[in-house]
Formats: sequence, C-alpha cells, structure tokens
Amino acid sequence: MNLNTHVKIILLETTSPANIGSTLRAMKTMAFTDLILVNPKNFPNKEVSTLASNAKDLIKNIKVVQNLDQALDDIDFVVATSSRQRKVPWPSEDLHIASPKIVHLSSHKSVGILFGREDRGLTNKELQKSNLHIQIPANENYPVLNLAMSVQVVCYQLYLDNHLNKPFKKSDIWDIPKAKSQHVQNLINHFIEVAEQLEVYNKGNPRQIGARIKRMFTRIGLDEMEVNFLRGFLAEIEKKLS
Amino acid sequence: MNLNTHVKIILLETTSPANIGSTLRAMKTMAFTDLILVNPKNFPNKEVSTLASNAKDLIKNIKVVQNLDQALDDIDFVVATSSRQRKVPWPSEDLHIASPKIVHLSSHKSVGILFGREDRGLTNKELQKSNLHIQIPANENYPVLNLAMSVQVVCYQLYLDNHLNKPFKKSDIWDIPKAKSQHVQNLINHFIEVAEQLEVYNKGNPRQIGARIKRMFTRIGLDEMEVNFLRGFLAEIEKKLS
Repeated sequence: MNLNTHVKIILLETTSPANIGSTLRAMKTMAFTDLILVNPKNFPNKEVSTLASNAKDLIKNIKVVQNLDQALDDIDFVVATSSRQRKVPWPSEDLHIASPKIVHLSSHKSVGILFGREDRGLTNKELQKSNLHIQIPANENYPVLNLAMSVQVVCYQLYLDNHLNKPFKKSDIWDIPKAKSQHVQNLINHFIEVAEQLEVYNKGNPRQIGARIKRMFTRIGLDEMEVNFLRGFLAEIEKKLS
Repeated sequence: MNLNTHVKIILLETTSPANIGSTLRAMKTMAFTDLILVNPKNFPNKEVSTLASNAKDLIKNIKVVQNLDQALDDIDFVVATSSRQRKVPWPSEDLHIASPKIVHLSSHKSVGILFGREDRGLTNKELQKSNLHIQIPANENYPVLNLAMSVQVVCYQLYLDNHLNKPFKKSDIWDIPKAKSQHVQNLINHFIEVAEQLEVYNKGNPRQIGARIKRMFTRIGLDEMEVNFLRGFLAEIEKKLS
C-alpha cells in the first residue's frame, strides 16, 4: 500500500503552530509524509519545528493553500473527521470501521483526511465537500480530542490496518531455546526432592501441593538456561544440606 | 467492564506539566479517570489545567507518589509501554494484540499502564517490574510518539476493545487469586538473596542472570499460594544455611 504518499493530512484554519508541529510528529511516527495547511493562522512559526521534534524534515513537504477547494484539487476521496452529529445525516462511520476501506482506497486513489479548526471543527458546507465522515470512538460525555491527538489516533489506526496483513515485529522472539519437556520433568522431580529434604513439602501433601508445583513449572515455558540455572540452584542446596 | 476505574495510567518522572495536562485530556476522551504520577518534576503547575482543558476535573483524582513501588502497591497487573527492544527479551506484544486481554483482565483486576520519562523512557529495572511490555505499532524509522500521544493511542485502543464487546476466551480461570505485583517483587528479591548465599548467583552476573530471574518469575503469573510456598521454601533454605 502507498499510505505514506497517497494519504494526505489536511488541517483547516489551524490557529496553534504547536498543533501543526505536533501533527507532523504524529504523522511521522505512523509513516505519513504529506501535510496540507488551509489558510493557517500562525504559519510559518518557530513553534512548529520545536513541537515537530525529529519530524522537522516534514516541514519542507507542507503545502499551504488559501482555501479548501485548492486543497482538494487533486484529491480523489475526501474523508472528514467530525465529532458532531449533523442535522443532515451524512455517510458516517467510526474510525476503526472506515480505516480498512481508506487503506484499500489509498492503494489506487489519493485520499485526503480533513481536520477542522481547534475551536469550531468544520462547517456544514465544508463537511459536505467530503465523501465520508468519520468519528473517533470516544467518551460520549467528552469526545473532544485535541487536534493533533486526533491526527495521531487516525494515523495510528490507518497504519495498523495497512500493516495487519503483514506480520508485525516478531514479539515472540526469545534469546534462548525452550527447554525440552523431559528436562522440565527432571527439574520438577529435583525440586520436589529438595522440598522434601527441606521439609516444606511432604507435610501430608496439603491442598495438592505436588500438582501445584508441577502446574507452576510447566506453565512458565522455561528455556534451557533457566532450567540449568534452577538445577544448579537445587544442586547447591543439596550440597549444603548433606 | 470497569475500564475507567480498574485501569490506572501511571506516568513516571514526567518533566513537562503540559504533558500531564494533555494526558488528562486524552484519558477523559476515552473515559479513563485515574492518573498516578511518580515523582513528577514540575507538579503542581498551572500549565496542567491549561492543557487539560475540559478534563480539569480529573486533576483532583491524581495520586502523587515518590517511587514506582508505591505506585504499584495495589496494582495486580502491570503493563509497561516501551519502544526499545531489550537485551533480554520480555513477554511483549503489540498494543492491538494485548489490548483485548488487558480489557478482559480489567474486569476483575486492577491494571496499571506505565509510561516512562519523555527523554529516556523506562529503565530495565523499571521494565522488569511489569508483567507485560507493549509497543505501539509505529514507523520503524521513527517510532517516537510524544508521551501524551502515547497515552491517547493506548487509551483509544482500550476504549475501542472495551466497546467492541468481543467475546474473550475464558482460558484464564484460576482457583487461587493471582499474587499482587509487590508480592512477586518481594519473592524475586528473596530468591536472589538466597541464590547469592548459595553462591549460584553473583558470579560476575554473567549473561544478565538477574534480569533472567526477574523475567522468569514475572511471566509465570504466580498465584498467592505459589508465592507463599516459594517464600516458605526459600526461608527454609536460609534457616539451614545459617
């Protein structure tokens, strides 16, 4: 997919340069590169690069235009973010429902995601220039995300859906091979022997303690180094006890 | 589910009061209410309420503590956010994979989601106090979300999964209550002490053995009876050694 170049983030009449900087950082963390500013109120401004942090390189990609029509000029599909319910209902979906479709569209069309003013969002007229309205699922009593936060969440969801088909970073990599089942059994037997010698174990076998020890050691998924370490630990106790 | 009261957001040694305010707003938009600050650098500060916007009411819920152990005192399950890959891999999952499980856990346990310092994140020692590490899927070349942005994305994903109402496999029913995080920490410390006395541990600390021991004990998900049994086992060894 070509999310990074085929999806453009569009901010309309943004007042705060901090929000523009934070938006760039949010975009870059999710691999988006293209920002369009429609009639920004305080731009350029040094706060932009301060808040952009290591996403400063995206500033040079910013396209500044004077009105929304110019921004939408070469956009095939316009998505407007909105938390308010309109008088005239518009095709409207929750972000996580719309996101896979937007990702799919972006493989062959240019998509613009439109975010409104900090204080007043988008007017009805502006909303009506879009093909789809999306809402970020949020607390009904206070669904008011900060502008750059909204960009972050939308970009995160799109990034996720763009990558879900592909395997993500292998979170299950382990540095040591898993122990063989027989080695874990030997460890359990060894542990029980030592526990008997320590007289913490065979006190009439209360509450199925043997079964509990086996359950504990088998469910860890011990690796070889752990088994070796625990065997060494037990051997050392036996040596001291003898 | 009781996400809003059973999941606590924990910020460690936050420098910027703006980030604390933005975190409150991010939390409230996703219906979270409880924030714990561990040794904050500039708090209280009027910027907190400025950035919190209409989430100012959450300021009165903030609990300030001096160290991480105090924060984790009545937390049953600790989730640490981390973007770095450690030398000793820890049980680790992408946010969208871990989130439904965290939501499920939060229906009957207190869960803490731990976020590190703005500049340095969490130390290995701090990460090792957690049961699970999560990463926000992000641009491999720049996965560095601003602190409050990370809170927003994590809260969004949890909110979403709490409302998607997916049935969750009940493979985790257990006969004994899970041990509190602090009790597991105490067990680990006790184990290391005994291992030192047995001279199987402090041999120049080869191959991060301390981290490996912590990883082993935290990933088991020990129950109270197991912790008590292991503590008794260790105490008995100490008695024989003395």
